[in-house]
Amino acid sequence: MTIKAYATQSATTPLAPFEIERRAVGPHDVQIDILFCGVCHSDLHQARNEWGNTQYPCVPGHEIVGRVTAVGDHVRKFAVGDVAAVGCMVDSCQHCPACDEGLEQYCENGFTLTYNGNMAGQGENTLGGYSQRIVVTEGFVLKVSHSEDQLAAVAPLLCAGITTYSPLKHWGAGPGKKIGIVGIGGLGHMGVKLAKMLGAHVVAFTTSPGKKEAALALGADEVVVSKNEDEMAAHANSFDMILDTVAASHNLDAFVALLHRDGTLVLVGAPEHPHPSPQVFGLMMGRKSIAGSAIGSIAETQEMLDLCARHNVVSDVEMIGIQDIETAYDRLARGDVRYRFVIDNQTLAA
Amino acid sequence: MTIKAYATQSATTPLAPFEIERRAVGPHDVQIDILFCGVCHSDLHQARNEWGNTQYPCVPGHEIVGRVTAVGDHVRKFAVGDVAAVGCMVDSCQHCPACDEGLEQYCENGFTLTYNGNMAGQGENTLGGYSQRIVVTEGFVLKVSHSEDQLAAVAPLLCAGITTYSPLKHWGAGPGKKIGIVGIGGLGHMGVKLAKMLGAHVVAFTTSPGKKEAALALGADEVVVSKNEDEMAAHANSFDMILDTVAASHNLDAFVALLHRDGTLVLVGAPEHPHPSPQVFGLMMGRKSIAGSAIGSIAETQEMLDLCARHNVVSDVEMIGIQDIETAYDRLARGDVRYRFVIDNQTLAA
Repeated sequence: MTIKAYATQSATTPLAPFEIERRAVGPHDVQIDILFCGVCHSDLHQARNEWGNTQYPCVPGHEIVGRVTAVGDHVRKFAVGDVAAVGCMVDSCQHCPACDEGLEQYCENGFTLTYNGNMAGQGENTLGGYSQRIVVTEGFVLKVSHSEDQLAAVAPLLCAGITTYSPLKHWGAGPGKKIGIVGIGGLGHMGVKLAKMLGAHVVAFTTSPGKKEAALALGADEVVVSKNEDEMAAHANSFDMILDTVAASHNLDAFVALLHRDGTLVLVGAPEHPHPSPQVFGLMMGRKSIAGSAIGSIAETQEMLDLCARHNVVSDVEMIGIQDIETAYDRLARGDVRYRFVIDNQTLAA
Repeated sequence: MTIKAYATQSATTPLAPFEIERRAVGPHDVQIDILFCGVCHSDLHQARNEWGNTQYPCVPGHEIVGRVTAVGDHVRKFAVGDVAAVGCMVDSCQHCPACDEGLEQYCENGFTLTYNGNMAGQGENTLGGYSQRIVVTEGFVLKVSHSEDQLAAVAPLLCAGITTYSPLKHWGAGPGKKIGIVGIGGLGHMGVKLAKMLGAHVVAFTTSPGKKEAALALGADEVVVSKNEDEMAAHANSFDMILDTVAASHNLDAFVALLHRDGTLVLVGAPEHPHPSPQVFGLMMGRKSIAGSAIGSIAETQEMLDLCARHNVVSDVEMIGIQDIETAYDRLARGDVRYRFVIDNQTLAA
């Protein structure tokens, strides 16, 4: 079947209308007509080949919410008419130790990215959610139980949400824990909301004094301007975990110093240029750790979606038509969005 | 009481005979006549003021084994004639959360170093084990149950031993776990022995092919020459924990790549010049951590000493007279010792 999408043909050409094929619905497949797709910073990097590995044509988009319009004979969990979602993965090897443990995001044979990925055994380039429809194997499709009017704001949960939820859960964010969130952007604003939902005491860190009110509005218990040494010093040795969502190179020692003994600074963004090397002494004096985390598993994504629906948690979004995607990218590059652009995929039909 | 010691008077003068005072035995004190004192690399750094914080005169030594020759009225755990030991700490605040949890090494008010430390409320410079006698509060004195002929080789357990034992225990080294030990020196050789004692599968990493046989003799199950890329690649993604004892600046990414998902690279040496900044992507893809650890608690030190006595584990040492300390320092600086110099403190009387 041929459907409408937006694609880039090279690192220097803008996204533009493009027709793509989706596979026929196989016995284990779910066909989803896409309603909304979030705009992740990765989309921008990948479209412009800033990581040097982009396959063209490239159709970005891995924060997908839509309605099921067909299911294969063996599909049990989804029916036509259901609201469903797809995140950063559309497949994994399903037979390595990580997959066996339900941690597809750490698949030892490499999971299949929703776009710019290779389908196992097919070698083709996967095409993402800036399109009218997607066909995905049942095991990588999520159920959405939010209300209909929340669906646009659910889309960013599929990447920004799970990328922050997974480490928050893994490192024990919850009641009685003091959790820091560094950077109040697409990921960070979800980190604040989700850490709060999990019951932690949440401190947001920002370099911009102007973002203080906004961070409090997201649910942060406290906001610290990280350039203010006195404000930082007041929190020395007090955090159980700090989730650092800032991908730009920055000084990690300042945050390590704020960790309590046995605390962990978790990085979820890989900087283009390395961070200044963290001081070992700061880690030794308090048995502190610096860790990394990548998205989250399918089971964990479902858990997060269900919990968010129950607690009425969604992303703060600004809706755009697909025709405005290049303007959105430019604003995204400048950090000019609170906090996530979401494409209304109906505009693809225009 | 006045006793004989060896002290430096400045960064550039050699260690030389010096008389020092020890306090009278208080109600909670244990007086120990020192039999043996290990020579830690820190002693060299501190004597020569390489960390810029040395107070002179400086009497190094924090790997102390001796015999109890007096105890205070309230001392219950020690009697005259017992073999006892003292490590890197001789006191801590005893009222912070870390001390309350029995983790004196992370005392939030700073524990008192055995030498070059300030006694709480006294402000004087503590003087270490290159001396005939030491007086220490009971809570910081360890029992030694090794046989008499092993006592010299027990001394290095008090720093090199506990500094490797504590992180091995904390990060779960034991049966079924694959543990790496980087650097086969004073700390590393104990790391190999202790990880093996705990039941782990132990892989020693060395830059010197010539150290392979020696590492196997220490009990390593495998030895990897870390400069050999093929040998390294064969262990990719397989370690539960790697304990890195090398204080010189080196590439951490090569070891992060060998960690299994959720594995931890633990650093126990602070380099003079920073390590090259570790790549965040390597941490993210496998939820890996880089952590630090500092010595170990008093309770953990006792646990280690008891376990080592039961398993007949001691350090590999080369005995010296105190008169040879400067030669020993020079050899230590060149890495020319297998694996720890230990001073026969009887030679102080000469």
